[in-house]
Amino acid sequence: MIKDKLIGVDLGGTTIKFAILTQEGEIQQKWSIKTNIFDDGSHIVPDIVDSINHHLDMYQLDRERVIGIGMGTPGTVNRTAGTVTGAFNLNWKTEQTVKADIEAGTGLTLTLENDANSAALGEAWKGAGNNDDEVSFITLGTGVGGGLVANGRLIHGTAGAGGEVGHVVVEPNGYLCTCGNKGCLEQYASATGVVHLAQDFAEEYVGSSQLKQLIANGDEVTSKIVFDLAKEGDFLANEVVNKVAYYLGYAVAAMSNMLNPSAVVIGGGVAAAGEFLRARVENQWEAFAFPTVRTSTRVKLAELGNDAGVIGAASLARI
Amino acid sequence: MIKDKLIGVDLGGTTIKFAILTQEGEIQQKWSIKTNIFDDGSHIVPDIVDSINHHLDMYQLDRERVIGIGMGTPGTVNRTAGTVTGAFNLNWKTEQTVKADIEAGTGLTLTLENDANSAALGEAWKGAGNNDDEVSFITLGTGVGGGLVANGRLIHGTAGAGGEVGHVVVEPNGYLCTCGNKGCLEQYASATGVVHLAQDFAEEYVGSSQLKQLIANGDEVTSKIVFDLAKEGDFLANEVVNKVAYYLGYAVAAMSNMLNPSAVVIGGGVAAAGEFLRARVENQWEAFAFPTVRTSTRVKLAELGNDAGVIGAASLARI
Repeated sequence: MIKDKLIGVDLGGTTIKFAILTQEGEIQQKWSIKTNIFDDGSHIVPDIVDSINHHLDMYQLDRERVIGIGMGTPGTVNRTAGTVTGAFNLNWKTEQTVKADIEAGTGLTLTLENDANSAALGEAWKGAGNNDDEVSFITLGTGVGGGLVANGRLIHGTAGAGGEVGHVVVEPNGYLCTCGNKGCLEQYASATGVVHLAQDFAEEYVGSSQLKQLIANGDEVTSKIVFDLAKEGDFLANEVVNKVAYYLGYAVAAMSNMLNPSAVVIGGGVAAAGEFLRARVENQWEAFAFPTVRTSTRVKLAELGNDAGVIGAASLARI
Repeated sequence: MIKDKLIGVDLGGTTIKFAILTQEGEIQQKWSIKTNIFDDGSHIVPDIVDSINHHLDMYQLDRERVIGIGMGTPGTVNRTAGTVTGAFNLNWKTEQTVKADIEAGTGLTLTLENDANSAALGEAWKGAGNNDDEVSFITLGTGVGGGLVANGRLIHGTAGAGGEVGHVVVEPNGYLCTCGNKGCLEQYASATGVVHLAQDFAEEYVGSSQLKQLIANGDEVTSKIVFDLAKEGDFLANEVVNKVAYYLGYAVAAMSNMLNPSAVVIGGGVAAAGEFLRARVENQWEAFAFPTVRTSTRVKLAELGNDAGVIGAASLARI
């Protein structure tokens, strides 16, 4: 029987997404289940196994046709051992033998990767990267992560910390980061970073602004609210967005000058602000990008949304 | 006959270096000739051909034993076409068909690469990189260049501008760079950058300093003089070196956080300052490097000196 199907799994702290794809990366079936993080996350792997087995049966897909499973996961992946550590949002407190357990439960081979790298592979393959061999990806969410593809392969580095673009320092002696350093991009361009900047800017701003009003009232302010107010013309909110775009443009230019990818793809929740943010980032980026880079690298928005993870994960099974 | 020899050529503005190496990268013979840049550099390629042919005859090395020639060159390399443009220090004003001409003249295959990338491959293979697959190289000379090896391969990027670490901005709105941008690393960590900083610092410094004296007298000051005076304890010179180390530490950390190489190797004329410079760069780097990177990436000095180019060039012929 010809092997012609890929399974992609995107493990997250609230849901686990699954998809069955063709070798060309077209999604044929997709579904998701809630992530059960109770009992130290001990239900997660069995739930994944059951869900895959159940759906293969339901779709009457002979597992002989499945090339393999690829999976993106939070935490630090030991790709050789097939284990995961430090996935705190899954309540995994010890090293998890993910690969061995899922392979034993499904009878299929599994390739593991961290979630940001999986999303990067997805966008590189079927999204804004247009299947190019040189694609950099940056995701702006609760944190800021990255995945760098050069010569068609992910850059893992010597200890798996390749692509830590969220921890490139953009403001020496700036905001203290959870990593212990100061001024990391993550502290300015993540959802919480945007709000932090808004709070600081509001304190010094004396003009009238709806954003300032919200903050002064102690109302909950999210990065989405900041971007929405900026789009509506709020002056202070625009100052905040411009500062976020400055830091992003600066960091994206550093990535571009080192890797000269055909595209730097910006994804994640904060990037939902869309062209409004992208255009401003590109504008700042132009001042920091080397001339050859400025004419050959593009700053783009991610195109796959929530599917990037499962598609990228599936691509791992091809190799 | 078994093919077991490599030829490496390192084409520079003043000399052309050659070496015959084993497949393991051991230099068996090396020699050099002056670069004749007269007549629009039209003698360069014929001189290379003659010198290779002459030495193969002299050493009675059957060219059947030669796997191929690798060559590092200034300018922009079109690796597919085997041509070079923009090598202004060679007086090459038009695109040069280097690969075709050397192959026709020697009967051997030639692989071309730019000089910074060749040196990076040399250090990665036989120098401070210890033949690891993840090595970043930065060379501090008249300019600042770089070569990045990830997954065992050079990162060229989509238009050949991968590794332009000299144009990572380290001081927004800083010194104007030849590339048109402001605050590029090259303006602070190249030989001329060090002198530029020294001149600016001297203007504002009111204490006694031999470096200040030299500059005030209008004596010629080189980056070597700045480092030598710093080693002798000159206060102003040390301030300059600390600033250079700060910018280098910052840029090297950005490289490290993105690529997490096992080593960032610092080479070139300015790096002749040795451990005196390296230790200070590492010290600054630690404040900007992501924790996992701090414990897995090393900041090292280049080990091959002038041989890096021919050795790295030769490594190209292996592939």
